Amino acid sequence: MATPQIKLSSGYEMPQVGFGLWKVDNPIAADVVYNAIKAGYRLFDGACEWHTDYGNEVECGQGVARAIKEGLVKREELFIVSKLWNTFHNGERVQPIVKKQLADWGIDYFDLYLIHFPVALEYVDPSVRYPPGWQYEGDEIRPSKATIQETWTAMESLVDAGLSKSIGVSNFQGQLLYDLLRYAKIRPATLQIEHHPYLVQQELLNLCKHEGIAVTAYSSFGPASFREFNMEHAVKLTPLMEDQTIQSIADKHSKAPSQVLLRWATQRGLAVIPKSSREPTMLSNLNCTDFDLSDDEIKTISGLDRGIRFNQPSNYFPTELLWIFA
Amino acid sequence: MATPQIKLSSGYEMPQVGFGLWKVDNPIAADVVYNAIKAGYRLFDGACEWHTDYGNEVECGQGVARAIKEGLVKREELFIVSKLWNTFHNGERVQPIVKKQLADWGIDYFDLYLIHFPVALEYVDPSVRYPPGWQYEGDEIRPSKATIQETWTAMESLVDAGLSKSIGVSNFQGQLLYDLLRYAKIRPATLQIEHHPYLVQQELLNLCKHEGIAVTAYSSFGPASFREFNMEHAVKLTPLMEDQTIQSIADKHSKAPSQVLLRWATQRGLAVIPKSSREPTMLSNLNCTDFDLSDDEIKTISGLDRGIRFNQPSNYFPTELLWIFA
Repeated sequence: MATPQIKLSSGYEMPQVGFGLWKVDNPIAADVVYNAIKAGYRLFDGACEWHTDYGNEVECGQGVARAIKEGLVKREELFIVSKLWNTFHNGERVQPIVKKQLADWGIDYFDLYLIHFPVALEYVDPSVRYPPGWQYEGDEIRPSKATIQETWTAMESLVDAGLSKSIGVSNFQGQLLYDLLRYAKIRPATLQIEHHPYLVQQELLNLCKHEGIAVTAYSSFGPASFREFNMEHAVKLTPLMEDQTIQSIADKHSKAPSQVLLRWATQRGLAVIPKSSREPTMLSNLNCTDFDLSDDEIKTISGLDRGIRFNQPSNYFPTELLWIFA
Repeated sequence: MATPQIKLSSGYEMPQVGFGLWKVDNPIAADVVYNAIKAGYRLFDGACEWHTDYGNEVECGQGVARAIKEGLVKREELFIVSKLWNTFHNGERVQPIVKKQLADWGIDYFDLYLIHFPVALEYVDPSVRYPPGWQYEGDEIRPSKATIQETWTAMESLVDAGLSKSIGVSNFQGQLLYDLLRYAKIRPATLQIEHHPYLVQQELLNLCKHEGIAVTAYSSFGPASFREFNMEHAVKLTPLMEDQTIQSIADKHSKAPSQVLLRWATQRGLAVIPKSSREPTMLSNLNCTDFDLSDDEIKTISGLDRGIRFNQPSNYFPTELLWIFA
């Protein structure tokens, strides 16, 4: 079954099921991306982000290059997403870092480029440290004076310069998104957020629907993605894949719990970007749209909501950035 | 015991316990304000806000005038707060409406003036409808294009023009507040938020502490303020005044549950603005700082947190404004 497409306000189409590159380790990243393309994935969601030792955009690009070279896919059949890190929010920093990220990937445009977090931090030169992470040195967090409007204006220039087909935001709360819509000349095509049955965020989805903004869910499996960080909630809560409600719905449809979690999100209209390094799981995740949950099943799953967010900086280290989703 | 003062970033001092004017009915508003001044209140928290039939700023001003005329208090001993309604966010609308509100109060400056909600709506001329409320006509919500930066710049001009000593915001989420701090020439002196043991908002308080912004709590008694609207949560939840934990702590200190709720907030550093039309309650609320809860008691009360917000537009009427705290 072909992956359904979501029509963006930019006019482009985005696959509703893609592949998330967060925490894909560098030594295997090229092979994982290559294998995912072979399995049928077309959307890859990357970022300038710190992973264990460094970022993985170079390696992901190598996987893409190999697949294109072997004729598995053409560039224009892929939908490659990357993100602007916090330290590059100052207007004049945006184009240069996008060009560096494109060079890392070995491509000449992104299909979608997002503001990763609405938090402007002091510039760190890529020759000094890359990816730069949250902390300037040691524990220090150094804000920058860049406003979201300054950053968004620079994001809009990426479209004009042909560096990204569409632009969007990630990890924005509703109020800040509403404010951005007051001044945006190019509206954000997508909002990417943490979203799973423990964090349903119905009101934010309502806003996006009303404003014609597509929503991409990350961490669709909830605590599973965060157990390795020893987060209290992530360790204590029932993993969603082992939740009785999810399991019994999965059994009823003869599907995996992971497929039920992805289908719940896609039937709510969201795009999903699961990750896996194992081929059977890759295929199972990709083929999550060939069955339908009933309205009641969707409601039952949404009823697991606890308003619990895992991906906030205060869960990784104690800083004043505790407030990021305050 | 004198009411403790909070030093604001503007240099002025704000009483930590004040009197909230929301839902004080017009026929009694002048007497209520007069009696509250007599009882010892110095801070009055008003707004251009729709109450049953109309606003109450004229009547509240009459109470102030009588108290000043009778020599109970001087204007400079009072701390009068009002707020900018959503329909006046466009820069050129701010000074005119503040002047009207000052005329309604019969005073020539506010001590503190706040952006009421971070939601710009289309202008409604006061000669057509005042206060204008959320809906333009019937059920319709009409956004305006004013950005928060445009509105805040106009707010700053109030200080320069001597129309308000201090300025601040209300009902802002952390991300929007952080963005405002990127461009503010005059920083917000205060943030006013819904705050009670069912909505503790520790991360937002952390941000404000870090940024030197004083926080004022409204609806300190939680669902009690909202039962009249027949809100599902407000009706179903145990009223905080009847909560076992609150009652047993109150008994231990020989205080009223309401005083425990106010003391919990003030010991967390917040200002409070309870309302009462009965003199004994007025006094009991005002005298809520002459005892101290233990750290354990404060923690126990904070442990009642359920992340439940009552004052959101979607609780009053079904509209796209569902998202306001998304």
